[in-house]
Amino acid sequence: MIIGSTGSIGEQALEVIAYHSDKFQVVGLAAGSNWQRLAEQALHFGVKKVAIGDKALYPNIKTAVSGLELWAGEEGLCYLAGLEEAQTVIVSVTGAVGILPTLAAIRAGKKVALANKETLVAGGEVVTKLARQYNAAIIPVDSEHSAIFQCLRNEGRFLRKLWLTASGGPFRDFTPEELGKVTPEMALHHPNWSMGKKITVDSATLMNKGLEVIEAHYLFSVGYDDIQVLVHRQSIVHSMVEFIDGSFLAHLGVPDMRIPIQYALSYPDRWPSPALSLDWASCQTLQFEPPDTKRFPALELAYEAGRIGGTMPAVLNAANEEAVYSFLDGQIRFVQIAELVAEVMGRHGVVLEPDLESVLEADAWARECFRTLLRK
Amino acid sequence: MIIGSTGSIGEQALEVIAYHSDKFQVVGLAAGSNWQRLAEQALHFGVKKVAIGDKALYPNIKTAVSGLELWAGEEGLCYLAGLEEAQTVIVSVTGAVGILPTLAAIRAGKKVALANKETLVAGGEVVTKLARQYNAAIIPVDSEHSAIFQCLRNEGRFLRKLWLTASGGPFRDFTPEELGKVTPEMALHHPNWSMGKKITVDSATLMNKGLEVIEAHYLFSVGYDDIQVLVHRQSIVHSMVEFIDGSFLAHLGVPDMRIPIQYALSYPDRWPSPALSLDWASCQTLQFEPPDTKRFPALELAYEAGRIGGTMPAVLNAANEEAVYSFLDGQIRFVQIAELVAEVMGRHGVVLEPDLESVLEADAWARECFRTLLRK
Repeated sequence: MIIGSTGSIGEQALEVIAYHSDKFQVVGLAAGSNWQRLAEQALHFGVKKVAIGDKALYPNIKTAVSGLELWAGEEGLCYLAGLEEAQTVIVSVTGAVGILPTLAAIRAGKKVALANKETLVAGGEVVTKLARQYNAAIIPVDSEHSAIFQCLRNEGRFLRKLWLTASGGPFRDFTPEELGKVTPEMALHHPNWSMGKKITVDSATLMNKGLEVIEAHYLFSVGYDDIQVLVHRQSIVHSMVEFIDGSFLAHLGVPDMRIPIQYALSYPDRWPSPALSLDWASCQTLQFEPPDTKRFPALELAYEAGRIGGTMPAVLNAANEEAVYSFLDGQIRFVQIAELVAEVMGRHGVVLEPDLESVLEADAWARECFRTLLRK
Repeated sequence: MIIGSTGSIGEQALEVIAYHSDKFQVVGLAAGSNWQRLAEQALHFGVKKVAIGDKALYPNIKTAVSGLELWAGEEGLCYLAGLEEAQTVIVSVTGAVGILPTLAAIRAGKKVALANKETLVAGGEVVTKLARQYNAAIIPVDSEHSAIFQCLRNEGRFLRKLWLTASGGPFRDFTPEELGKVTPEMALHHPNWSMGKKITVDSATLMNKGLEVIEAHYLFSVGYDDIQVLVHRQSIVHSMVEFIDGSFLAHLGVPDMRIPIQYALSYPDRWPSPALSLDWASCQTLQFEPPDTKRFPALELAYEAGRIGGTMPAVLNAANEEAVYSFLDGQIRFVQIAELVAEVMGRHGVVLEPDLESVLEADAWARECFRTLLRK
């Protein structure tokens, strides 16, 4: 089951599944709005149960393909996420829309391969509480968290620190003046990874790494003081763990999302992968440096939101989603993304130990607050 | 119990034990010839059972310290290695002299922390067979093999390749002409690690890495085609494993032997260590390049000996031991070390699937053959 099958992660997950077609049967597919591609995928993989997030597009896909069992809207995504015949649910939608299907999959006892970081950022407390309650396995798909998951295995009790690596994005060497002139076209060219638009912009602001810090906090139950970020331009080391004895374990590989996607599916086993191996025959240089939070304030904002906790990470995430899409629409400048997120955070009255409702309310409030600021 | 307590590894093992004095009691110490230091250590750690390898020195230590239960010679080392009250035996002598005490410890059901690579190189078949028979745990202490051991944990069945890192030694950038003029003083300055003389010279010829390839072959049951060597000047990455899915796990840390020594003692747990952590706050650059086997032919000799198998690795090791000490004595030049080892190997009639006797015979034969060549 893939919730978010037409995005970058969804497409690569289907590639992995096709490569291991002896091991899997796709029982359902869901997407937000790309109904044409969703229909193609359903036909190609012989999938009968399909959901489209945008209800308005229900008639389009209904007319285009016959013989599908079709659902629509958030309820449709949640229904498929809890579908009885699914064993593993890959949640690869982008944005806070991933929260409800993830919770549905947890409640239905599925193994959840979670590629949607906003779910853990916004709903971290709610999701981890429910996962403990249902004893559900959440396997991270994000390359950094998959790396940490693989390095930690059952040595979590000896952990000293997590070290998340960041490529630094396309503007890591830009001056503050140059950052003031960044266009959406420039932001969409990531140096190492081929990803969706939202995450590519997040990589350029370092907000992506900030969201990952919060995600790591919830996934691995590690305090913010013990989660560090390192800029590593080559994106070969995908993250590291440091143990109390001074040992570091690192996960390395080519920047190919099919590796962590496949690991989430194969865990606790490993399978052969079509991904390239690292080429050590030519000389390799790996560089590491601390991030510059002066030029990239989004990272510090995320630490701040994480430390405050409660509904603040949901507000950070929602305001950032709105800001990124406003930037892509040409409504705000690149450097305004972090400024406006900070502004929204400053206006938020935090609810501590929130339930799902409070999280969704905070999400909605932050988006509304952002739009109000934008109209000024 | 430490067999080889006055060498570099033995001294550092005692440091680790002193740091964790709540967890250990040293029940015995053995050394080859440094009886003064051995006596000091016995007094300092309140150890009553002591062995000196060189029988001629038995009277010296006997006179110097009263109240010790004292043994001497190879039998003495083996007696202590199998001592009833010892749970863990650290074998940290240098050279093929480590084989018999290691076998004694295995037969007595001890957990063996093995820092003596020559034991596995020369006696690999015999030692691993006996370890299987007695279901004995051999925990590697060499930093590279400890790194691999930590990265592998219970994922050995998914292994594609082992990647051993090598500093490249002090002469990694020397031209063939410069290599012709290397003196013992120059060879004893290792750029990253502080170690004993024999291993420091072996690092300079890359024979040390070759011996480690053979050691890895026996420790992890991996074929020679799947063991690769990479020159990594900074000695931060201590080795890597590559899995079938394209994932690499690497062990990193400061070059401090107390980390792998302690891990061999704490395994499967980890304990806090006095070793420094890696400093990521200053920028770090890690470089990797293939080794140059033209300038450093010893590495290829080791692969060749390993692939031939039988008694050939024992011959490689014995000839190399003799060659290194001859070089340190000023009898041969640096580049002759590999030349003479190759010459001895060429004259050897291999015994396949050797028993202990054949291994010890091959060892003695190789030393005699080397001396004959030297007299020519």
